[in-house]
Amino acid sequence: MAQKINRYKADLREFRFVLFELLKFEDVLGKAPYAGWGRDEVDMVIEGIDRFAREVTGPLNASGDAEGCRVVAGEVKVPSGFKAAWEALYEGGWKSLCVSEEWGGQAAPYAMHALTEECLCGSNAAFSMYPGLAYGAAEVIHSYGTKDQQKRYLPKMFGGTWGGTMCLTEPQAGSDVGAAKTSAKKLPDGAYAIQGTKIFISGGDHDMVENIVHLVLARIEGAAPGTKGLSLFIVPKRKVNADGTTDGPNDVTVGSIEHKMGINASATCVLNFGESGTCVGELVGTVEHVGIQQMFKMMNGARINVALQGLGVASSAYLNALDYAKERKQGSHVSKWKDPTAPRVPIIQHPDVRRMLLDMKARVEGIRALIYKLALHHDRAAAVGGTDDKQAAYHRGQVDVLTPIVKSYSSDQAFRICETAIQTFGGAGFLKDHPVEQYCRDAKIFSIYEGTNHIQAMDLVGRKLGQDGGANFRAFLGDIGAFVQGNAQHPTLGQDVQALGKAAETLGATAMQFMTWFSSGKMEMVPLAANRFLEMMAETAVGWQLLESARVAEEASAKLADGHPDRAFYAGKRAAAQYYARNVLPEVTAKAKIISREDKSPIEISDEAFATV
Amino acid sequence: MAQKINRYKADLREFRFVLFELLKFEDVLGKAPYAGWGRDEVDMVIEGIDRFAREVTGPLNASGDAEGCRVVAGEVKVPSGFKAAWEALYEGGWKSLCVSEEWGGQAAPYAMHALTEECLCGSNAAFSMYPGLAYGAAEVIHSYGTKDQQKRYLPKMFGGTWGGTMCLTEPQAGSDVGAAKTSAKKLPDGAYAIQGTKIFISGGDHDMVENIVHLVLARIEGAAPGTKGLSLFIVPKRKVNADGTTDGPNDVTVGSIEHKMGINASATCVLNFGESGTCVGELVGTVEHVGIQQMFKMMNGARINVALQGLGVASSAYLNALDYAKERKQGSHVSKWKDPTAPRVPIIQHPDVRRMLLDMKARVEGIRALIYKLALHHDRAAAVGGTDDKQAAYHRGQVDVLTPIVKSYSSDQAFRICETAIQTFGGAGFLKDHPVEQYCRDAKIFSIYEGTNHIQAMDLVGRKLGQDGGANFRAFLGDIGAFVQGNAQHPTLGQDVQALGKAAETLGATAMQFMTWFSSGKMEMVPLAANRFLEMMAETAVGWQLLESARVAEEASAKLADGHPDRAFYAGKRAAAQYYARNVLPEVTAKAKIISREDKSPIEISDEAFATV
Repeated sequence: MAQKINRYKADLREFRFVLFELLKFEDVLGKAPYAGWGRDEVDMVIEGIDRFAREVTGPLNASGDAEGCRVVAGEVKVPSGFKAAWEALYEGGWKSLCVSEEWGGQAAPYAMHALTEECLCGSNAAFSMYPGLAYGAAEVIHSYGTKDQQKRYLPKMFGGTWGGTMCLTEPQAGSDVGAAKTSAKKLPDGAYAIQGTKIFISGGDHDMVENIVHLVLARIEGAAPGTKGLSLFIVPKRKVNADGTTDGPNDVTVGSIEHKMGINASATCVLNFGESGTCVGELVGTVEHVGIQQMFKMMNGARINVALQGLGVASSAYLNALDYAKERKQGSHVSKWKDPTAPRVPIIQHPDVRRMLLDMKARVEGIRALIYKLALHHDRAAAVGGTDDKQAAYHRGQVDVLTPIVKSYSSDQAFRICETAIQTFGGAGFLKDHPVEQYCRDAKIFSIYEGTNHIQAMDLVGRKLGQDGGANFRAFLGDIGAFVQGNAQHPTLGQDVQALGKAAETLGATAMQFMTWFSSGKMEMVPLAANRFLEMMAETAVGWQLLESARVAEEASAKLADGHPDRAFYAGKRAAAQYYARNVLPEVTAKAKIISREDKSPIEISDEAFATV
Repeated sequence: MAQKINRYKADLREFRFVLFELLKFEDVLGKAPYAGWGRDEVDMVIEGIDRFAREVTGPLNASGDAEGCRVVAGEVKVPSGFKAAWEALYEGGWKSLCVSEEWGGQAAPYAMHALTEECLCGSNAAFSMYPGLAYGAAEVIHSYGTKDQQKRYLPKMFGGTWGGTMCLTEPQAGSDVGAAKTSAKKLPDGAYAIQGTKIFISGGDHDMVENIVHLVLARIEGAAPGTKGLSLFIVPKRKVNADGTTDGPNDVTVGSIEHKMGINASATCVLNFGESGTCVGELVGTVEHVGIQQMFKMMNGARINVALQGLGVASSAYLNALDYAKERKQGSHVSKWKDPTAPRVPIIQHPDVRRMLLDMKARVEGIRALIYKLALHHDRAAAVGGTDDKQAAYHRGQVDVLTPIVKSYSSDQAFRICETAIQTFGGAGFLKDHPVEQYCRDAKIFSIYEGTNHIQAMDLVGRKLGQDGGANFRAFLGDIGAFVQGNAQHPTLGQDVQALGKAAETLGATAMQFMTWFSSGKMEMVPLAANRFLEMMAETAVGWQLLESARVAEEASAKLADGHPDRAFYAGKRAAAQYYARNVLPEVTAKAKIISREDKSPIEISDEAFATV
């Protein structure tokens, strides 16, 4: 096989623009709770994680895909090089950036988590599943565990000595978490006997650590049916003694691993708990039947992580396509297409290639701005928490509203952007010689796991729209409205800002239509239109962030001398915003019209009418 | 690895509806040039090829993907079972259906070719590349070869004793075929010495046949640059004697095979011609420098074949997702979602699953109707050729206009439909246990080979729109106009037919805009808007075919007793048409508006502004 080159790519200028110029990251730096963080520290993270991604995780992406995982003697073996990468990751402190100082971390803003996840996922989506899940599981124990549990588990989980997973899905249940049958039976010593089978457990087993801490949703004997009867348990692969040392096996076995379209280096396991009747777990914290709320702590973070996976993969796909388009010579310039002796030009000179590149650029950069905006809402909420409750609530509300948007839009778009990257490469893009075909395969799972994109859309329209009496959604529209009002007469962007205004207005009207459906009992329209509404909202939000970026860029560019290298960068921001405003934002209105027609054909058709087979 | 089940699926009722009810196939049966073909013969083909696809090629799809091809001692070894399938294919007469009786075939209508290709490609896209290319190469010799060439090559190529390929692409040229450097030097005996390297040669070598006949585009010494200087040569892998027997090797060697995202069982070869200076070819026919025209005979057929590949794969993906949705129980009915004790229901009962299913159904069936309509235009042109030149020209013109549409739209949509099929399966769709992830990987190449979809779009707007003074495009719009006029007041479909009318009107106006760009020298807008225009035209055409299908179905259904099994089938036609008219046709107008804005941002942005890397 042709050797595939490590080609992880990131644009560090872009990271700095988004954080410091667009989102005013310095507002939250140098003061509580991020007193130890200044611009220099952030720059070190930007450069360090980029180097790590290029030098450590990136080079294992293609090889890990080709090698995959194996089950040997009941244990999962990860691909070559992964264990060393895992160790380097924790030695470099990359997974403890946002951990509190109490547990050995560096108490960084959440935006630093976003940045490191973007780079780790973009360079190796499969590898980053393992530490990502371990981190998420540790966070749950951090939030809900007893002090004793924290002491026994957190140092090892945050430090990479132990791994971690989240175990929700069961064979018969899938997305329907409330149908979980895994049982927990209280034992005389206060522990619980766990019995059941979980599937699709990412990193469910691997040989990079001495122990793996599973967080398992299970139903205590006699508990209510549905999600309300579920409790969350700490179920380590090997038992953990009271002093935190590791004991013998805990009757957690790997049934099998899945063979997949992508993220082949991530072990997706069937886990059997208590096949021999000797699996014990301890309740997270001290309260039974609150497992689903505890798990959602992890789920919300996991959903933002999926958004970052999509972003990282899509961004590297775009930058690889850009590189290829600049290097690959083919065909003559469009102005000389009738002259067979005209010189061959790099394909970036062909209009359709430029269109594809700008399309990818606009989507990638708009999604990035939106996800980091969400991260900054998180950090600003933490910064004003306790001093300005109203502002803190506003910021937390925006995190809530934007989470389903970024999870769905980033994951769906990542797949499409990878598709466009392949098309930009042409036939070469279909080959394993270049990284884009793997990116595309890896990206397909993003729209499915951590809650399918339809579940996200239902979360948005069924819960987030009306959350806090609708205040969060209104605040979102209000932020856009303020931007539109302030920039509708902008000399270069005014017309495109007005297009944004129209999109936002349409979005608000369509949200009202959902409210009407809810109140008038036309419930059947809600799931039929939810995905399209989510897309409308995502496109509006992304268009807004691109235009905001362009406005900031125009202002900064005006202050620069001709020929300053940043001028091209800033001009790129204007082009991306204009492209998106003119080619994507009009779709918002088109979608609203489609929704307003209230087409019910999918529920009117009978099952038999789909096909005669 | 979990054993993947052969799951090729087709809906035979649908084939019969499209051919006999929608397209009035019987018009051309039972008379010249298809005198030997009647409804019974067609039914035998429908049932026979479906059985062949399910029993012979289908079961080799997953295993061929897993096994792939290997080069052993300079020769390509295809996956297990392929040679037997090849032999069964030719023994069954499936590749000689449309061959003339003179060469041992059954002189079937082209629609029978479409049907068999759809089933072969849908069941095993990789396998069907080999016989597909062999057939295409033979057709070129049939059309342009000398009688002697036909005698020596056709019986073996049509009969499956020898394979065949088309060799266009070169490493430095890609889509820019005119940049080919492969050389041909006339030898004293009238043959030509061939030297050069060709890449991306599907079926470039394999071990299912004793010889492979390459059709090679090369430039005779002193010929003009560009495509006009190219000639087409017959270059067999092993030399062929005057009596048609096979002689020694012809200095054609396999440089390597590619490792790809999909169609892994199809050997994509680098072929070196004349590395030792002993490769000889013979000119196709007797005229030099007409190679590109000769090759286009094959290309046009190949483009329709790609449309059929997309259709076959997408159709089986849809039917597999439908099956899964009927079997898989998960979650409670939407009306009982708050009751955790409500019974679990098959996921087809969930509105968003129904939406995905109907979306796939509408696209698959609309694309099928359009491709078969094209095939019938071909057959009707043959039927009236010589007796009604005007009608023949009309039908041939529609084949020309529709070819880039079906190639692009079917291939792009196939990938999207496979994406939707994966999403319908949920996490299971990402696993190799089910066929949809392979369908998705296989389908990605369809938008690239046989002329990328942008090349198709440029062919449409740059050549086909204005072809014959615009007559062919006008006739296309005229056909839709007549349908709209006749059915705008249809009791159940009227409103949707009016939406089609609006789409067609918009399409005509956008075509005028292209004409204005051409005439006013705004050439730069043409490539930027071409893909979107092609989509508009494809959506209009597909919407038309779905509405026409629904109209036919409504009429037929009205004559049936309640409870007749066909009533559900016909109701499905109405639902598909309504869904598409209400959810996709509005996009035509939205796209027209976007085009009318004349956004030039992709060509205004500088190369440096794309990124700072």
